[in-house]
Amino acid sequence: MPERERRDQDRPRRRPPRRERDFAAIRGGEDAALRRRILAAAAEIFAARGYAAASIDEVAKSLGATKGLVYHRYRSKGELLADLCEDGLARLAARTDEIAGRRERAIARLTEAANVHSAAVLADIALHRTLAGATSGMAIATLGAGEAEAIAGIAERRRRYDAIFTRLIAEAVEERDLPTGRDTAMLGRIFVTALDAPILWPHDTIAELADRRGLIARQLAYFALRGIGASDTTLREEFSR
Amino acid sequence: MPERERRDQDRPRRRPPRRERDFAAIRGGEDAALRRRILAAAAEIFAARGYAAASIDEVAKSLGATKGLVYHRYRSKGELLADLCEDGLARLAARTDEIAGRRERAIARLTEAANVHSAAVLADIALHRTLAGATSGMAIATLGAGEAEAIAGIAERRRRYDAIFTRLIAEAVEERDLPTGRDTAMLGRIFVTALDAPILWPHDTIAELADRRGLIARQLAYFALRGIGASDTTLREEFSR
Repeated sequence: MPERERRDQDRPRRRPPRRERDFAAIRGGEDAALRRRILAAAAEIFAARGYAAASIDEVAKSLGATKGLVYHRYRSKGELLADLCEDGLARLAARTDEIAGRRERAIARLTEAANVHSAAVLADIALHRTLAGATSGMAIATLGAGEAEAIAGIAERRRRYDAIFTRLIAEAVEERDLPTGRDTAMLGRIFVTALDAPILWPHDTIAELADRRGLIARQLAYFALRGIGASDTTLREEFSR
Repeated sequence: MPERERRDQDRPRRRPPRRERDFAAIRGGEDAALRRRILAAAAEIFAARGYAAASIDEVAKSLGATKGLVYHRYRSKGELLADLCEDGLARLAARTDEIAGRRERAIARLTEAANVHSAAVLADIALHRTLAGATSGMAIATLGAGEAEAIAGIAERRRRYDAIFTRLIAEAVEERDLPTGRDTAMLGRIFVTALDAPILWPHDTIAELADRRGLIARQLAYFALRGIGASDTTLREEFSR
């Protein structure tokens, strides 16, 4: 082995030289920024036209980009949908997981997670419409095999996300902050869907309410907490923080 | 004017001869039955494929009928959507209007109307998915001018339907069965959407729960009533009937 190659091999290669690192970081950042832009455009277009009627072409056009740029990252519309939902759920789950893991009473964590969830729905209704369409199986008949698999993955991911709320409800029942003897799985299902309510509101209602988002998120959380049995005393305490 | 024609003219024509009447009744019945069949098929197909991706052809095919038969009644997919939603809302409104008009306390009428609404959603999830898609403005970008007008009409019709619940909530507040000092319009909006919750549940969840529909409708109504502030005493009374 020539001297030069041996030296290269022996040298620790865990850190690339600075210039190479900077370039990788910039490229990584550009990549992440591009992904963000593609996903934001896809969410808008899927929500406005419906997933079935939307095309990668339209997503590219709305970005002022070529179809190739989008196809370079996503081989099909199904892959794009899956990444959009995956990314949205991952960002949401990161926040609610953190809240669920705190050392507080379950009812306090549940209240906070509920507020965070409904605020997220109101802040990005297009994403949440698309997500609901994918997980509820709307328009499922139009999907190819690969797309159907992607959708099944999202539905499973969403079930795991919803389970965070069901677990917190069960804990709050154990801690006597919610009444016992009720069907926790069903309550969890109803609870999360109530927080998702704005998905079903008309576009113009959402637009009218845009400047009161924080208030509405709290109203939704309050309604849902009360719906599953939180007492007035508990609600006063949780919503005065 | 010949004698015969004058006699025909003089004769009262408000009731056609019996045989003609019978034939008209049968034809009317067949017409109504055909409309029912077309609307049921359209609801399934719109819910499964999404309105934008669905076609009148598919509706006809699923009926084992020719495209002409459907086009004979509906000139466009938008007309079909409008009639489907119109018919669904009219049937629902007939029931809740009747309940709202009774001489009972508002909270009792609200409870009954909530039960009826959520039971109707669970009994015909395909119709309610399509209705929600139309009124929330999903896939609105794919519509032609005539279709957009039809959709706007449905959204208005739905607003009037939802107003039944908001009115009953306001009355129950006046009758002191619900707490005062809250935003009744927002409560009404959240209340009705909570009853619509199953629209957002996955297909397989709905299928699993099919034999417990009555129970789930009551759980949804209970959750929503409690969510807007009904006391435990009131709930016990209303849900023990």
